[in-house]
Amino acid sequence: MSKLERFFAGPELPSPCLAVDLDIVESNYRLLRESFARTAIYYAVKANPAEAVIKRLKALGSLFDVASLSEVELCLSLGVAPQHISWGNPIKKESDIGVAFARGVDMYAFDSHEELEKLAQCAPGSRVSCRLHIDEGTDSAVCPLSAKFGCSPITAEELMVRARELGLVPHGLSFHLGSQQTDVESWEQAIAVCAGVFRRLRDKGIDMELLNLGGGFAVRYSHDVPRAQAYAECVHTSMRRHFGNHMPTQCIEPGRSLVASAGWLRSEVLLIADRRDRAGGHKWVYLDSGRSSGLVETVNDRIVYPLYIPNHEDSAMEDVMLAGPTCDWSDIINDGVLRQVPTTLKSGDHVFFTHTGAYTTTCSSVGFNGFAPLESFYI
Amino acid sequence: MSKLERFFAGPELPSPCLAVDLDIVESNYRLLRESFARTAIYYAVKANPAEAVIKRLKALGSLFDVASLSEVELCLSLGVAPQHISWGNPIKKESDIGVAFARGVDMYAFDSHEELEKLAQCAPGSRVSCRLHIDEGTDSAVCPLSAKFGCSPITAEELMVRARELGLVPHGLSFHLGSQQTDVESWEQAIAVCAGVFRRLRDKGIDMELLNLGGGFAVRYSHDVPRAQAYAECVHTSMRRHFGNHMPTQCIEPGRSLVASAGWLRSEVLLIADRRDRAGGHKWVYLDSGRSSGLVETVNDRIVYPLYIPNHEDSAMEDVMLAGPTCDWSDIINDGVLRQVPTTLKSGDHVFFTHTGAYTTTCSSVGFNGFAPLESFYI
Repeated sequence: MSKLERFFAGPELPSPCLAVDLDIVESNYRLLRESFARTAIYYAVKANPAEAVIKRLKALGSLFDVASLSEVELCLSLGVAPQHISWGNPIKKESDIGVAFARGVDMYAFDSHEELEKLAQCAPGSRVSCRLHIDEGTDSAVCPLSAKFGCSPITAEELMVRARELGLVPHGLSFHLGSQQTDVESWEQAIAVCAGVFRRLRDKGIDMELLNLGGGFAVRYSHDVPRAQAYAECVHTSMRRHFGNHMPTQCIEPGRSLVASAGWLRSEVLLIADRRDRAGGHKWVYLDSGRSSGLVETVNDRIVYPLYIPNHEDSAMEDVMLAGPTCDWSDIINDGVLRQVPTTLKSGDHVFFTHTGAYTTTCSSVGFNGFAPLESFYI
Repeated sequence: MSKLERFFAGPELPSPCLAVDLDIVESNYRLLRESFARTAIYYAVKANPAEAVIKRLKALGSLFDVASLSEVELCLSLGVAPQHISWGNPIKKESDIGVAFARGVDMYAFDSHEELEKLAQCAPGSRVSCRLHIDEGTDSAVCPLSAKFGCSPITAEELMVRARELGLVPHGLSFHLGSQQTDVESWEQAIAVCAGVFRRLRDKGIDMELLNLGGGFAVRYSHDVPRAQAYAECVHTSMRRHFGNHMPTQCIEPGRSLVASAGWLRSEVLLIADRRDRAGGHKWVYLDSGRSSGLVETVNDRIVYPLYIPNHEDSAMEDVMLAGPTCDWSDIINDGVLRQVPTTLKSGDHVFFTHTGAYTTTCSSVGFNGFAPLESFYI
């Protein structure tokens, strides 16, 4: 019996609820640590900002990538050194930069002229990384990040020259190929583009130190994905090919790949309704968890979580629509996918969504339709 | 200067934040009250469950439609009589029904065999309404409710016969044509279907009392919509045509149409980035409010809120992409629509989304990317 199984077999718990096995987080970290030797790991706190997760990763030597001032403050409150924090969100409130800088944070991402001026003003002398927009390679990501963030290589060069003029440290470049990026080869193209920018800036006397390879390493939800080693090998080969003897320091920003597989979300069946009395109708299984209580990534079928339904091992299976408890028509779990459940499933039974350790707790609504946010336990 | 303008011109407020003018809620209620004479109004609490809204509507004589046990408890805690509460969500946890019944709630919706058995067990003798699935008319709604809820007319007849056998009161029928339903004529078809079920059940000795006409009356966001009077007239004509001398009591369940126009959400510009250095790029305006901090209905462009940007009256306008503050690529406000903003707009300026009184506060995430839920004020 796994630690998660033992936990859920124990005393009564709220429903729905999430449990995260910190030992799985640790083994995910160790796997990335081994695969990406000589690469700094900044955990993307937004994936799961639970204190227990941050503490465990801190103990293992992880650094931290944050998206907002409150994530900065969370990390600092748990004893993370400010120089171990990278503020990777290229969009920041000016006053928030000032607060973070006063607390010792000196590593910031940006991708626009205005943000650079804000950083020079509020975080003078800091190390700044410019985020590049990479055209190729994002088609195979479930969550492409291309439109909202990043500048062109030419703009990046201009910005880094300007950064030096403004007294900032032109520290490096970053890119992000999209969450759940299954095409390991897409790093090759991005690294080639970055190497060109590094080279041209070196010619201008700007010797950047860091290449941030982003996150996006895929988690095995319902389909096979490349292993960590495969990403690492492609990165390693591409770095040697494109940077040669001018190898910068490298870092990655994994979020999902560290915590997703460590979590199980348990929900309860509220109602089973046979809607085949209507043309094109299905059998529907309504759960007490849905889009606004942790499963927001099932919207537009972005993520299809594996199901685990205990105590029905001998049952035949059937296709059903899964839906959440609210009056919202769109509170359907993967509206484009029928899911297989035991024909013997009944109200009151438990349905587990595995691999739900990332982007579930903080994505809960505060109270849509009166339903409480997802509770969580770290074991 | 309107009350909302005066409020936002006052002392410093958190950003982003929402303010709701309760006098506008009241005038929206009075307009529906006049248009739908002799029709009970059950406010759909889920649209905005703020205590101030519920208290004002209670004082005006409104009844309340709830989606969950916590909404039941909220209404009761504010002095709403249990017999003024209708639990309209056809999906309920069995134990929750028992709690509500013990507190005096005796009016429940259902649309399936199993839910009916649960009601007979946990809320014996209650008044139950069966929700019908209406095929026609939902194409013109922004939020079709057709797939997740409702049974066929034939199933409804069976269920009502069964309700009587189980000792429940076969109280009536309900339907919902989808939120933002702009086709007033779609009520005609739904009412015709319901009249047939009423008639056939009367032939079986079951004389139902109530027809619940649902909500979905459209709010004028960015396009003209029918007036309340137009909905009421179509309903009135259809009821006379299809029910003749056997007219049931009628009720409606407005949510959005009572509160949306009363709210303004004020956000602050964090950054303006010109992304036209990329093929197909745009100018981007990043705000401190986005999909996870109140503007969730902009996902898939379901709602396009009107903008109000003060202090730039003399400026030319330009098309931009609007986005929220998180690292999420999908945290874009109306990703299919460029919005017009003043060319003189700059960081620190305020951008108001008007008509944001419904489905904003409770839809905020508890802390995605570390950003706090939307704060709100009722004035």
